[in-house]
Amino acid sequence: MPDLRLSATGLEVGDDGSRLFAFADTVLRGVGQVMFQNNSYAGLLFLVGIACNSLALASAALLGTIASTLVAIALGADRQMVRNGMFGFNGGLVGIALLYFLEPAPLVWACVVIAAAGSTIVMAAMVIALDAARMPALTAPFVLTSLCVLLASTRFGHLQASEFLPTASLPEAATVGGGVTAATLGEGLLNGIGQVFLQDSMLAGALVTLGLLVASRRACLAALAGSFAGMLVAWGMGAAEPAIRAGAFGYNGALVAIALSGAVLAPGRLATACAVFAALATPFVTAATAAALEPFGMPALTLPFVFVTWTFLLASRLSIG
Amino acid sequence: MPDLRLSATGLEVGDDGSRLFAFADTVLRGVGQVMFQNNSYAGLLFLVGIACNSLALASAALLGTIASTLVAIALGADRQMVRNGMFGFNGGLVGIALLYFLEPAPLVWACVVIAAAGSTIVMAAMVIALDAARMPALTAPFVLTSLCVLLASTRFGHLQASEFLPTASLPEAATVGGGVTAATLGEGLLNGIGQVFLQDSMLAGALVTLGLLVASRRACLAALAGSFAGMLVAWGMGAAEPAIRAGAFGYNGALVAIALSGAVLAPGRLATACAVFAALATPFVTAATAAALEPFGMPALTLPFVFVTWTFLLASRLSIG
Amino acid sequence: MPDLRLSATGLEVGDDGSRLFAFADTVLRGVGQVMFQNNSYAGLLFLVGIACNSLALASAALLGTIASTLVAIALGADRQMVRNGMFGFNGGLVGIALLYFLEPAPLVWACVVIAAAGSTIVMAAMVIALDAARMPALTAPFVLTSLCVLLASTRFGHLQASEFLPTASLPEAATVGGGVTAATLGEGLLNGIGQVFLQDSMLAGALVTLGLLVASRRACLAALAGSFAGMLVAWGMGAAEPAIRAGAFGYNGALVAIALSGAVLAPGRLATACAVFAALATPFVTAATAAALEPFGMPALTLPFVFVTWTFLLASRLSIG
Repeated sequence: MPDLRLSATGLEVGDDGSRLFAFADTVLRGVGQVMFQNNSYAGLLFLVGIACNSLALASAALLGTIASTLVAIALGADRQMVRNGMFGFNGGLVGIALLYFLEPAPLVWACVVIAAAGSTIVMAAMVIALDAARMPALTAPFVLTSLCVLLASTRFGHLQASEFLPTASLPEAATVGGGVTAATLGEGLLNGIGQVFLQDSMLAGALVTLGLLVASRRACLAALAGSFAGMLVAWGMGAAEPAIRAGAFGYNGALVAIALSGAVLAPGRLATACAVFAALATPFVTAATAAALEPFGMPALTLPFVFVTWTFLLASRLSIG
Repeated sequence: MPDLRLSATGLEVGDDGSRLFAFADTVLRGVGQVMFQNNSYAGLLFLVGIACNSLALASAALLGTIASTLVAIALGADRQMVRNGMFGFNGGLVGIALLYFLEPAPLVWACVVIAAAGSTIVMAAMVIALDAARMPALTAPFVLTSLCVLLASTRFGHLQASEFLPTASLPEAATVGGGVTAATLGEGLLNGIGQVFLQDSMLAGALVTLGLLVASRRACLAALAGSFAGMLVAWGMGAAEPAIRAGAFGYNGALVAIALSGAVLAPGRLATACAVFAALATPFVTAATAAALEPFGMPALTLPFVFVTWTFLLASRLSIG
Repeated sequence: MPDLRLSATGLEVGDDGSRLFAFADTVLRGVGQVMFQNNSYAGLLFLVGIACNSLALASAALLGTIASTLVAIALGADRQMVRNGMFGFNGGLVGIALLYFLEPAPLVWACVVIAAAGSTIVMAAMVIALDAARMPALTAPFVLTSLCVLLASTRFGHLQASEFLPTASLPEAATVGGGVTAATLGEGLLNGIGQVFLQDSMLAGALVTLGLLVASRRACLAALAGSFAGMLVAWGMGAAEPAIRAGAFGYNGALVAIALSGAVLAPGRLATACAVFAALATPFVTAATAAALEPFGMPALTLPFVFVTWTFLLASRLSIG
């Protein structure tokens, strides 16, 4: 369980009330950091300003800031940075952006939590990547995470763009597929392995899986789990059935899972946690990449795998030290 | 006034004539460096070649090279690099590109000077960023700066694409707004603060401004100045009135001004100079980012703020040492 | 077990049979590395899986893996990395992707070899670039190289998209030009120099060439050779005649050839080899960049020159260091 005793004054043995107060102060500083203010009163006024305009947006900001801060604590990020709200502001902005650009729905609120958590992974990766150059990440994690979900929404039938998203004026994407059946999932699982080699074929997928089994049981299991996870998330978000059946949402997850569960990260608890979270994030990045490459008429290939693996690899170093 | 005593041979006490000669030589080397030639005769022949085809393009090349070289001197860039024309060639190319792809007009000539100056900021940032990898910036600053202005021209009614710009065949962007009034500027100023949190609301903007005031008077002043500067530049370039009123050209400038006037750069003369120039550049980058994300149906969010702040942060190190 | 007898210098004891066996094992490991398996049995099963679905795709995978591995050996890449298949998997995937997304034709098979070779250059550049951050290149070289050729195919009349390429549904690009004549080549050669300054004028091109001659005979020769090479490749790939005549496929090659033959690489055998290969690659990157910027209505400017020069500069260090 994450340790929330974060006070700058070294409040290591506080009771529940003071710990809660410290966390609330951290969250408000997180809102303040959107405009570089490490000041909870500023954060509170920012939040009140948003609430005067829209209670839903203010709630989303608060929820996003809380989620991204908690993930940073769980990741073991630098305590002082967390306490100053440096791992809160991107999540807060993600919360606002998703509620603003998507039609409100329970699934969107779930996406706020997931995406705000994801923004902390991106923030962690950028803190590591920019460290040598002594450059701040600024709001880049917010922008990248929000654009990922908003782009993905064009492939996910259960996320509807609001009138404020410019995309709303584009031709409708192919998200309305038929019903997903057991056959979809069975074919999709193996196709999701075969598609690593651009093979939309269950036999090819089965032989590739066998090849993995020969070389490494862990890799084989990870590939199947990654393909399956990608398929399930895509199904839950309302992706088109033919795409799910063809393995389009599986192959990047299969590669991500192999990479992070042992091939490029040393096997262990951290690696497994990374692999699980990354596999769940991959269908979003896959849908976003496909949407981003659509104006060019180009396929996503394994670009989502590269993006997700690089991000989690960098972010994992924040924990390792 | 910048000190033009730049000769590699240590011409520190030259009279005005020899200083002017050294500067002319530097400018011609700058033209020569477009093709890697640190040779003023080559630069002169390149210029004559352009002039034979078009006097206007040759003048733009000359003007751009002069402007970008002068900014490099003012920035305190490495003297030998300046003397070899390394801070001239990108500005020269920017000058040609703007005159070629935009319909000639006095405002375009002003843009040549501003953009050539901007190309030196980008060059400075890239020199710093690529230093560790021992990689040359090549003509990347030219490309980035030119594409920024050309993309921005699709949002700025006073910059018209010439027949040579492929954009000319795209559907016309919304640049013809109604007249800008005092109400536009008043609403735009506060909306430009509120939009940091995606709030198109004067009350929200006012409360956010109050929050800034509570935390830091400098940050509050910078945010208002940044929002106002962005609005004025957008107005001057012929942006659509509704966008100006909604604060669309203000919020990135507000963040840039806070960041560079003290939040991420140490406060001082350099920081103030960076903040002012960056705030003026931000509406161009904002318009360009919006145009670049249009094919994807995506909003610019705070991406312009991130781009501009990173660029000026890196470039500022060229002066610091 | 690992047999490193792969290069001229390592050829101490093995006979031809064992060398061939070691190379075959390396190639199969390369296929296995697509899914992180340094295991030739896994690679063999992957290949069989593809072959069950399509013999042509399996052949392309094999051909691409062989070509990219051979180029890595020629480059003098780290032996153990080569032996483990680390320079094979990107080429193998490039082979599959080109055969899958383009209509099969002898020219496409030639492109498989060229692009797989190019993926090794990109891999070498990324290995160098990511070395300091201890990050793996993953399949990024495959993605970049494949997208380059697939984007370029929209400008090259002799490469036809298959039904699987999303591009196939976009409006047809202008690839059908008139016949290329001696006049095309003569004008194109000089325009290809003048276009560095955006001048579509033989006189301007001639004067710029004269300027180069005054400054450096090597640079002048390189520029002419680079412009000519770009024109020939574009012609061979079926680019539109007016674009070839205007020098659109020449100016980036001219700059690349100057840069790599002596301006930014020390002159010598390595520099010359880099300049030649890079000049041949440049028209592909030029066509791809133009296609990638088309949705934005923007011109390619000298972006292809920057991409190609950076890539070869980084890759050249694999041999040097």
